[in-house]
Amino acid sequence: MPVRRLVLTVTCPDRVGIVAGVTGFIADHGGWVLEAAQHGDLGTGRFFLRIEILAESLPFDHAGFGDRFTPLADELELDWRLGDTDVPKRVVVLASREDHCLADLLYRWRSGDLPCAIPLVVSNHPDLAPLVEASGIPFAHVPVTAETRDDAFGEICRRFEEVGGDVMVLARFMQIVPPAVCDRYPGRIINIHHSFLPSFIGARPYHQAHARGVKLIGATCHYATADLDAGPIIEQDTVRISHAEGPEQLVALGRDIERVVLARGLRWHLEDRVLLNGNRTVVFP
Amino acid sequence: MPVRRLVLTVTCPDRVGIVAGVTGFIADHGGWVLEAAQHGDLGTGRFFLRIEILAESLPFDHAGFGDRFTPLADELELDWRLGDTDVPKRVVVLASREDHCLADLLYRWRSGDLPCAIPLVVSNHPDLAPLVEASGIPFAHVPVTAETRDDAFGEICRRFEEVGGDVMVLARFMQIVPPAVCDRYPGRIINIHHSFLPSFIGARPYHQAHARGVKLIGATCHYATADLDAGPIIEQDTVRISHAEGPEQLVALGRDIERVVLARGLRWHLEDRVLLNGNRTVVFP
Amino acid sequence: MPVRRLVLTVTCPDRVGIVAGVTGFIADHGGWVLEAAQHGDLGTGRFFLRIEILAESLPFDHAGFGDRFTPLADELELDWRLGDTDVPKRVVVLASREDHCLADLLYRWRSGDLPCAIPLVVSNHPDLAPLVEASGIPFAHVPVTAETRDDAFGEICRRFEEVGGDVMVLARFMQIVPPAVCDRYPGRIINIHHSFLPSFIGARPYHQAHARGVKLIGATCHYATADLDAGPIIEQDTVRISHAEGPEQLVALGRDIERVVLARGLRWHLEDRVLLNGNRTVVFP
Amino acid sequence: MPVRRLVLTVTCPDRVGIVAGVTGFIADHGGWVLEAAQHGDLGTGRFFLRIEILAESLPFDHAGFGDRFTPLADELELDWRLGDTDVPKRVVVLASREDHCLADLLYRWRSGDLPCAIPLVVSNHPDLAPLVEASGIPFAHVPVTAETRDDAFGEICRRFEEVGGDVMVLARFMQIVPPAVCDRYPGRIINIHHSFLPSFIGARPYHQAHARGVKLIGATCHYATADLDAGPIIEQDTVRISHAEGPEQLVALGRDIERVVLARGLRWHLEDRVLLNGNRTVVFP
Repeated sequence: MPVRRLVLTVTCPDRVGIVAGVTGFIADHGGWVLEAAQHGDLGTGRFFLRIEILAESLPFDHAGFGDRFTPLADELELDWRLGDTDVPKRVVVLASREDHCLADLLYRWRSGDLPCAIPLVVSNHPDLAPLVEASGIPFAHVPVTAETRDDAFGEICRRFEEVGGDVMVLARFMQIVPPAVCDRYPGRIINIHHSFLPSFIGARPYHQAHARGVKLIGATCHYATADLDAGPIIEQDTVRISHAEGPEQLVALGRDIERVVLARGLRWHLEDRVLLNGNRTVVFP
Repeated sequence: MPVRRLVLTVTCPDRVGIVAGVTGFIADHGGWVLEAAQHGDLGTGRFFLRIEILAESLPFDHAGFGDRFTPLADELELDWRLGDTDVPKRVVVLASREDHCLADLLYRWRSGDLPCAIPLVVSNHPDLAPLVEASGIPFAHVPVTAETRDDAFGEICRRFEEVGGDVMVLARFMQIVPPAVCDRYPGRIINIHHSFLPSFIGARPYHQAHARGVKLIGATCHYATADLDAGPIIEQDTVRISHAEGPEQLVALGRDIERVVLARGLRWHLEDRVLLNGNRTVVFP
Repeated sequence: MPVRRLVLTVTCPDRVGIVAGVTGFIADHGGWVLEAAQHGDLGTGRFFLRIEILAESLPFDHAGFGDRFTPLADELELDWRLGDTDVPKRVVVLASREDHCLADLLYRWRSGDLPCAIPLVVSNHPDLAPLVEASGIPFAHVPVTAETRDDAFGEICRRFEEVGGDVMVLARFMQIVPPAVCDRYPGRIINIHHSFLPSFIGARPYHQAHARGVKLIGATCHYATADLDAGPIIEQDTVRISHAEGPEQLVALGRDIERVVLARGLRWHLEDRVLLNGNRTVVFP
Repeated sequence: MPVRRLVLTVTCPDRVGIVAGVTGFIADHGGWVLEAAQHGDLGTGRFFLRIEILAESLPFDHAGFGDRFTPLADELELDWRLGDTDVPKRVVVLASREDHCLADLLYRWRSGDLPCAIPLVVSNHPDLAPLVEASGIPFAHVPVTAETRDDAFGEICRRFEEVGGDVMVLARFMQIVPPAVCDRYPGRIINIHHSFLPSFIGARPYHQAHARGVKLIGATCHYATADLDAGPIIEQDTVRISHAEGPEQLVALGRDIERVVLARGLRWHLEDRVLLNGNRTVVFP
């Protein structure tokens, strides 16, 4: 059983003394630093910091940390959050009919590989209810049509809030999320796109890839934004294909890479390793 | 020293009996097959075949093969060519100022890693003359400007023909090849593009990649066609990058992947492993 | 739905005329070749051939093929077999307590990604019965102890025969298969080893890998032989790790690569792409 | 032109307050932190830290830093060093007859891709003198035989000291470095081994790999230690091979991966990204 850790992540305008200030605060309270990483982006002038602290080394809990840290954070203009490995994030998964990403997430969650809770799965089709319910997770069927779209997403958001969702995962959810929903949860909606973005945006990327004759296909895990397929990328990977594979075989091969890329990107998000830097991300290993 | 091989490659409309007809011809003359591969594309209805024959097992030479093979080839409507590992292809390299791909090709050629002759290197700048001439290869400086473009490429083609060039390699040659030249040498002009096509076509792909925040960068080796950056892809590969790398570092990391992808694609072409299938390629391993 | 194919695989002493003889036979009966590949090993003097034939193009069925092909096969000393994509191989999976490989195989089988039947799962522990039975597959609990080992494997073999098993898959089956069993089913028992063989043979390879400080970990799919961890390798792959990962995290990361490597190796076996060449394999793509 | 940076690396027993102490010292003197990373190894109880500081943000130079930092370093029991991107490390390359790694290092050095000086290349054969001298680098021919071995290495060490060498690179130097020499320069002799260690230690690893039938070959960059092929690993990578490749082709394919792995490992060393953790390494990205 891994030790409990508090994970402090910080984004702020770059200046002298940020690391010193933050780690000085931690040291002054006896905090034991397990891992830490920092990055300054000379282009955007932003600074990024992630520190894992042994929870038991601090004399106060999560709330107590906030009380004492706030004055320093205000002084240094820190945009910060504090994760707690004992309080896993709550993930609401949205899926349609294809189950490979959903089944993979459920398997990883069950086996303890993904540090999260999954209080709800939502789908616009009823097909995956048995798979979800067999895992003991509530399943909500919310149909989406062109006409009911806004209402349907209103319902999805309502349920997301109701179960205290931290992050929404679009596990091959074949519906376009309305811009207003994306804007409402910045950095909290994760999508898996079945191509190596920015290649092959739009429909049927594997068929596009086959037509273009590429030699590798890929998948992209990114935060959803109002600008479709253009949100900040968390993770990507590729797999080699050959001339012998037709579009259907690319679809099949792609399922493997989609699963792995989504799981990897989501785990990094759950472990507070991903920080937003405009339309790009900082991912601390 | 590898044994001498004749390499027969065939493209034709698919039908019953192609492999049997071709290999029957070879066997009837005592030909020893070392490696062979075939592929039928159900989508385009084309068939592709590559056979390596031990040269000494045949009772005739390269020309004799052609005389005897032609009747069968005509009957089966074969588009065929016969390579000979004792007659390496003649490669004319075009470069500009950046030398990483050129230097790599020269090194591989010198060390016997690339089975080809390099009778000429052409550049629109004089900078790389010493590098080329130190290898004992003639260097031609052919300046290219917007006004002289067509004349310059006329001169390049003239010299290419003069030295009996089989294939032109654009080794980071920063000039757009006129459509007429591409059309004149279909499947004989190889370009290395410094992105994972079709992503980031156009100028400064590494800067585009950095701005988009991708997590892998890549390179693409493809045949040049009149439609810029859209020709048949021979080989691609990618390399992982992180948030810590700025555009200049992507350029530096990209040099490694460009070199490797170009060398691999070119070697496959030199070994007659690449067959055109419309705007895609069949690459026999 | 992919078209039905007969897949002919051949291993034989190398000589002139094998491809011509075999493909001539096929063409004489109107057989339409979809994909084919051949390989001659100059070192061992063996020749390997794989041909996919459109089933409906032949005037006889699987048995009819054999009747007519046998004389030629005898003449050319061919060791051959004929697969049929309409008659999927029957896979018996052996597992212990860890379920990641088993769950992955079951998922791929259910989703049609693995062309096989799974008539039985055997385990030396009862833990995985619910997972297996939820997929509608019979589960047999056969305890194995040091004393009952030979009897237990006798029972496993009996059940394997009973269900008409073609191939046994050791999906993280933590028991050493007796040499006699390996010898009885050459090229028919597939194991997934949780290291990049031949590194880290023996127990706890991830802990060995961590202690040695390697920068990549891997997995190996191979045929089981009497010589433990030394059988012919079908497929391997690796994944990058860093200093920040302890042995437990390597175990977790390794699960992903084990699953993928086993599934890939098994699929190639099921598609008759793997031929034995002494203690090595020929894998036709 | 990248900005000048001081790079502080620290290894020490783990305790509370290390990061705070070190970064507090930097901040107190106005130091601007560009990148930083820390790692605590719970297994060995050691802590590792790397900080890049904008040189011009500090009111003192390299020597001045040391004067002021020493009291704190002593108090915290830090084992530290301070790199300076304006004072590149001095690399002495040892080679034998094969030139692929040496030629690659020279190319990267010339093109500014490797931040180092190369004051000397030593070889036990005279063959590579022209290649080296064409780059304007002194070449020393020091023959090594079984009898003269210790003397020869004495001479090599003498010359290494004479040119102020920081690090010795064994670029396919086919001689075993005496244990006494390894012990004299811990963490300062870098070797490229032509296999994915710990597989295929000893002679002719590609032939061993072919005989074993592995599906990937690799290369390993590691620090040389008295225990041959067992030193701390800096970097490894692999490349896929197929049954069609014989041992000679593995050797040729391996050259590419050797070059890349050595260059990558060496660059990380030159950038002070590699810290020793017993027989393993911490590599900060």
